[in-house]
Amino acid sequence: MATPFDPRSALARIEPEPLPTRPDDAESLDVWGFRDTRFRARPDGVVELTGRRYELSGQELPDLLPWVQDTIHPGVSPHDLNPAHYPPPVPKPLRNEAFLEELGKIVGADQLSEDPELRLRRGHGHTLEEMWAIKYGSLPRVPDLLVWPEDEAQVEGIVQAAVRHDVVLIPYGGGTNVTDALRCPDREQRMIVSVDMGRMNRVLWIDPVNRMACIQAGAVGRNIQRVLAKYGFTLGHEPDSVEFSTLGGWIATHCSGMKKNRYGNIEDIVLDLRVVTARGLLDRSAAFPRESVGSADVRRWIFGSEGCFGIVTSAMVKVVPLPEAQVYGSIVFPDFESGVRFLYDLQAHGNTPASVRLVDNLQFQLSQMLKPRSTGLKQLESRLQRLFVTKVRRFALDRMCACTLVFEGARQEVTAQQKATYALARRYGGLAGGSSNGQRGYQLTFGIAYIRDWIMNHWLLGESFETSVPWSQALSLCENVKRRIHEECAKRNITGTPFVTCRVTQLYATGVCIYFSFAFYFKGLSNPAEIYAEIELAARDEILRSGGSLSHHHGIGKIRQRFLPRISSPGVAAWAREIKAAVDPTNVFGVANQFFANPDA
Amino acid sequence: MATPFDPRSALARIEPEPLPTRPDDAESLDVWGFRDTRFRARPDGVVELTGRRYELSGQELPDLLPWVQDTIHPGVSPHDLNPAHYPPPVPKPLRNEAFLEELGKIVGADQLSEDPELRLRRGHGHTLEEMWAIKYGSLPRVPDLLVWPEDEAQVEGIVQAAVRHDVVLIPYGGGTNVTDALRCPDREQRMIVSVDMGRMNRVLWIDPVNRMACIQAGAVGRNIQRVLAKYGFTLGHEPDSVEFSTLGGWIATHCSGMKKNRYGNIEDIVLDLRVVTARGLLDRSAAFPRESVGSADVRRWIFGSEGCFGIVTSAMVKVVPLPEAQVYGSIVFPDFESGVRFLYDLQAHGNTPASVRLVDNLQFQLSQMLKPRSTGLKQLESRLQRLFVTKVRRFALDRMCACTLVFEGARQEVTAQQKATYALARRYGGLAGGSSNGQRGYQLTFGIAYIRDWIMNHWLLGESFETSVPWSQALSLCENVKRRIHEECAKRNITGTPFVTCRVTQLYATGVCIYFSFAFYFKGLSNPAEIYAEIELAARDEILRSGGSLSHHHGIGKIRQRFLPRISSPGVAAWAREIKAAVDPTNVFGVANQFFANPDA
Repeated sequence: MATPFDPRSALARIEPEPLPTRPDDAESLDVWGFRDTRFRARPDGVVELTGRRYELSGQELPDLLPWVQDTIHPGVSPHDLNPAHYPPPVPKPLRNEAFLEELGKIVGADQLSEDPELRLRRGHGHTLEEMWAIKYGSLPRVPDLLVWPEDEAQVEGIVQAAVRHDVVLIPYGGGTNVTDALRCPDREQRMIVSVDMGRMNRVLWIDPVNRMACIQAGAVGRNIQRVLAKYGFTLGHEPDSVEFSTLGGWIATHCSGMKKNRYGNIEDIVLDLRVVTARGLLDRSAAFPRESVGSADVRRWIFGSEGCFGIVTSAMVKVVPLPEAQVYGSIVFPDFESGVRFLYDLQAHGNTPASVRLVDNLQFQLSQMLKPRSTGLKQLESRLQRLFVTKVRRFALDRMCACTLVFEGARQEVTAQQKATYALARRYGGLAGGSSNGQRGYQLTFGIAYIRDWIMNHWLLGESFETSVPWSQALSLCENVKRRIHEECAKRNITGTPFVTCRVTQLYATGVCIYFSFAFYFKGLSNPAEIYAEIELAARDEILRSGGSLSHHHGIGKIRQRFLPRISSPGVAAWAREIKAAVDPTNVFGVANQFFANPDA
Repeated sequence: MATPFDPRSALARIEPEPLPTRPDDAESLDVWGFRDTRFRARPDGVVELTGRRYELSGQELPDLLPWVQDTIHPGVSPHDLNPAHYPPPVPKPLRNEAFLEELGKIVGADQLSEDPELRLRRGHGHTLEEMWAIKYGSLPRVPDLLVWPEDEAQVEGIVQAAVRHDVVLIPYGGGTNVTDALRCPDREQRMIVSVDMGRMNRVLWIDPVNRMACIQAGAVGRNIQRVLAKYGFTLGHEPDSVEFSTLGGWIATHCSGMKKNRYGNIEDIVLDLRVVTARGLLDRSAAFPRESVGSADVRRWIFGSEGCFGIVTSAMVKVVPLPEAQVYGSIVFPDFESGVRFLYDLQAHGNTPASVRLVDNLQFQLSQMLKPRSTGLKQLESRLQRLFVTKVRRFALDRMCACTLVFEGARQEVTAQQKATYALARRYGGLAGGSSNGQRGYQLTFGIAYIRDWIMNHWLLGESFETSVPWSQALSLCENVKRRIHEECAKRNITGTPFVTCRVTQLYATGVCIYFSFAFYFKGLSNPAEIYAEIELAARDEILRSGGSLSHHHGIGKIRQRFLPRISSPGVAAWAREIKAAVDPTNVFGVANQFFANPDA
């Protein structure tokens, strides 16, 4: 808990013990997530999520497959599989012997690996194309070596050696990006070393009075949560990938968390950071509440740098006492438009809940199908609920949509926020849908992430992408993008009905973040991953035409770099490239994201 | 007022008329502020502020001078003046004929001036040393020419011509900085042109639905307020210089506003900007609620750039509907420490008023002396008030201090905030001091800015400087800096008692912004401005030792650049200089602030 403030007491920092590694920390190499968790369709068509980790785990989902057959394609079946061929052939490693000799003096042998599967894993994130490639194709270029530095001095040594010997370094955090940001440039002739930050994962100190903590860049979100919670604090930063992604990754991708209304996005949370670069360590004397120090504020160079400028080793962050109360909520609306109007009004009134999400009708339907088989009283209750909504309130099942909410704060504050939020919702025809539906909605976020890899086995390709857009263009953008995706699918003779859905995941004064999900049945198509990529590019074109941004929080990576000239003048590209050349003249951070694609590599 | 939201309506922008120039807009060249406003001491010792602009204007202040005599030096008198010798000799302009010829094709003759006083004014801001120099000394180097561009294309033309002909450009906004940021490098051999943005001062459009506006960089704060208010909006950005400083200047100094709790600092308000640089125009397609686009987000390069990277021509900003209610408040505390404890608790509870300031005892006393002569009932009331505070509540007149508050928002929200704030204050011995005292405190901000130039005539040199510091170091920092200034004054045989005071002006989760004011009697000293500068440097040394930042919002300029190596590693300096050289290879923006001091110029 927060320490009472005595302005005359000396600075007192807590130095937490390192977290022990646990057996259930093990992650899959070939698919998203923990090893203990996978979806599977039983021969009788009932879907299950293995393991015991999530609310959904071990539950029977009888409605999902029939709904997919109805909604997307009748060919989806437990009996018709598209088996993966993981692992693919992995290229043999290049070896820069002079570099390796020097590296051997900096790190121990147990900090290096040439293991093909581990190298493969460091050569990709979680774009659909990449996950397709490792299971049904191959990656032409992956890192030649992995190194796990254990402290900042080792990182400095590695970077200096790489500069001297013209080696490429690619920092690696959780590997959860969806922008091809970790993909190695195909034609890179130099040795590529993946710098895996996984062993630099400590919460170094917590300052409970000034509400700061210093955390190493390789710490993953779930562990940061666990350590801080032990002392009564939270970072409040919860991207959907929080189980696996790292502090360094959040900084490098300019990440957004689902509770940003209360805790801010990553740029609001990180007070200062340390970065090892080709021109030395960027290091500040301390982290201050707020400053005007121009170029001496190094955060600006590094937020969203996507591995192109250096390796973040640690950061000082704000921490917040754990909220007294956390309450979930949900509201159903007769249609998406009513929901958007509600969101605008909610934001305009200020005092928004920690998280607010609005899913469209299709996503609402999907979430209903992900409900476990209910029996007895529970079944009756659920039937009665539906009856009330559809018969009494005349909500159309194919139009209604849902908003999920998380309220956090002091008990009184949460109560007031709930009251105000539901009152406002009623003005837009909204009907409180209960706390358990809200909670389920948020917990689904983590379980649902496993779906993409599972459905690939059933001839379905699906993925998500995001944008941000001013309020007045939000609705038309959603409609335009959906229409465009359907048109693009039709052009390509995709059979069945493509699944195209969206949700509003973040509110801002001037607009919203919108998340699209898109899936289609690909059996019979010879190059489905390419087709998917083409359609995602078309969707991005439509997003930009409709007034949306190139990225809200995923970043640019390689998947969106072709659009950079559409969002910025040639002067911006010139600045970016001149700056990159100035601070990394040998391109040691040669991962080639954003403006830094190398036409020769 | 805010427009009701229809997500299906087309984007509708208001394009406000330009504001007509008004006679009372005229500003002084030799001292701070509007021409109609100056302090003066009548022969009978009563002080007056001329004009009718401020609440204080035209009032008689009988208590001020006696208090100054008691508190600082008995020699201060209406009869002993130190007359200014403004204007000083102004260096003859250098002329780069080839540049001038090209410039003549870009702008009209009425957009250029070599007038010595106007050039002098563009060659300085409002540091004490600069104001001393123009009145009692001279400036060795000032701009050789002034140009007033009227649109962005002209700015581009000017920059391109300057690059071609090796001319230095110094962007000029309101000229209110206090960091020597406008001072020309003494030995600069190239022609220096001041680019005065004063004619690019329009609010170009307001988007009432998405709550954005596009404003030219030369617009001054008071005019932005006036135009936006006409349509029911505010920027909410109110630095103490808001009457004179410009949007471009706010961006270039990384400005903070007194109501940042509600509206944010400049980085929270500016969504996007356009900048003319040596490598072209930095220009984005639109401004989005939030993005992750790495180097394509040009704000990062420009916030706090202090004229060294380019000329901001316009920015897209958030606007907020004018608050339904605005209420001032004040609280007196038995001592400063109680006040600081209260502030910590207030911030920790969240929901802080738009502005909260805590002044120490000396500043509280000064504010009492700036009260107009009160008569009749008012006098009685004020005596009774003092009686209650000092006799009943036993507050010591030489220890008590005061907090001023501004509450803004919906009426209900303001009421709730007031209630919570005063309840909390009582826990720390705080006593509500009334709304009119609060209001007076804030209005004094504007009037008091005129004092510095006035007291110089009475042998007093005074100035302010700021820092930010974590909570647990705030109180000791205040004490250390005060002690250090007193010691430094004693070493230099300064007579009387130096006036050293501080106030907390901003609250953050992790700490506060602290403002120091310092003045001393200098009659008999041969080099008082140098002595002042030495002591300010010593104070800054003490700030850094005590855990404070180099700047909260004033910036670095030239006055603080020597401290940069103390706050950042050599790598940071290397990055800054490499980046500057990369994006401005001929140093056309050669104003030499921050890391960019040129040892040869």
